[in-house]
Amino acid sequence: MKEMVNLLTNERIDVLYKNNIKIIQSDEVFSFSLDAVLLADFINPPKKGTGTLVDLGSGNGAISLFIANKIKGNIISVEIQKKLADMAKRSVELNDLDHKIEILNKDMKDIFNEIPKGSIDTVVSNPPYFKIETETKKNLSEYKAIARHEIKADLELVIKTASSLLKNKGHFYLVHRPDRLIEIITTLNKYEIAPKKIKFIYPKKGMDANVVLIEGIKKGKLTGLKILESIITHNEDNTYTKEIITMYKGI
Amino acid sequence: MKEMVNLLTNERIDVLYKNNIKIIQSDEVFSFSLDAVLLADFINPPKKGTGTLVDLGSGNGAISLFIANKIKGNIISVEIQKKLADMAKRSVELNDLDHKIEILNKDMKDIFNEIPKGSIDTVVSNPPYFKIETETKKNLSEYKAIARHEIKADLELVIKTASSLLKNKGHFYLVHRPDRLIEIITTLNKYEIAPKKIKFIYPKKGMDANVVLIEGIKKGKLTGLKILESIITHNEDNTYTKEIITMYKGI
Repeated sequence: MKEMVNLLTNERIDVLYKNNIKIIQSDEVFSFSLDAVLLADFINPPKKGTGTLVDLGSGNGAISLFIANKIKGNIISVEIQKKLADMAKRSVELNDLDHKIEILNKDMKDIFNEIPKGSIDTVVSNPPYFKIETETKKNLSEYKAIARHEIKADLELVIKTASSLLKNKGHFYLVHRPDRLIEIITTLNKYEIAPKKIKFIYPKKGMDANVVLIEGIKKGKLTGLKILESIITHNEDNTYTKEIITMYKGI
Repeated sequence: MKEMVNLLTNERIDVLYKNNIKIIQSDEVFSFSLDAVLLADFINPPKKGTGTLVDLGSGNGAISLFIANKIKGNIISVEIQKKLADMAKRSVELNDLDHKIEILNKDMKDIFNEIPKGSIDTVVSNPPYFKIETETKKNLSEYKAIARHEIKADLELVIKTASSLLKNKGHFYLVHRPDRLIEIITTLNKYEIAPKKIKFIYPKKGMDANVVLIEGIKKGKLTGLKILESIITHNEDNTYTKEIITMYKGI
């Protein structure tokens, strides 16, 4: 483990405990959410992820870092924002994962020279969730606006890119909002990714789901979908449930 | 309440307790399942179901009977099998619901003379779940085979018929199997029914969902889907959970 890392103004290092993964964060620029932890926990490609895994829109690299220890193959983390890609690079160095994780600071539209179509075993993504509405993004920094709103990449671009990258029978893992599930399923169909497992996450007992996790297979059969056991993230008193505490302790 | 009813061989009368609904059943021919109780509990059309509600593939009338007390309008129960439609008719009489529930013994393909297209406020259906495979139906009576397998009506016919019957903004309620969710959503899209609420039912803690309940709106917006709180039907010791016992006590 390297002892030194350059931290910029307002950056801090957080730790995901059990894995002892250190990650550079910044409340002004980007810090990972519970959704990244949920997706990282859900990702479980066949053969322990041999081959290459691409993380589309990787932000500060949270998901790539969280799954590095459970994935056998190498990881390419694609991030359009230079500042976030730079944070991710320094976090990768901080964890001595340079041999495993490559940060590619590019628009996902322009990655096919570096990553040939049909060459990838697994694609994962925690993309921007929200359609562009000036109302919702006016109080956000540009970094956060791009990370959360479909400014540079929308759902269709993410799914189209994932499908282009994947080998036949390659696996795709997505975290998104349940209110867009119909659009997600329709778009997966359009780009020949068959949903195979769906898991819903509920914020609290008695409430509607607020997160959906989806595993799909490129050119997989359209039958045999499994709706996995759901997760509730918070107790009545707003503390995390045991299941979430266990996740934070180690993925 | 009528005191007398003609019961045929092997028929019995079961009671849904709280509502005191009596229903003629037969293990050889047809008896309602937990899924019918789940769908009846889930059905909740606007304005307490004023106007006309059609129950497509109504079997022995279980769902129509269970919801009769919470629906303000009238109910038409469409059932292709004469023997089942006859059981339903006698159950309707037994509960003095002749003024509210009409049993139509017809193939759903042939109902548009009796029920004009675009005239219905609410359609509900607990259709056959299983694709036709000789293996799975060979041990069933013909009655049960038709009720459970897509021999006379498949998913597409049910959804197409529901869509034809519904007024714009009319509500559709369906119970089905989660492993066919992708096909259900694709077919709803095709016939312009927008899913608005989905509820998953799990047989036990730690298991995948085995039932899905869907509420859709004819020509509704495709955004704003809600994934409602899920239900677990059985405790570890195979007894019903409190939630299910409450449902059986009254819908």
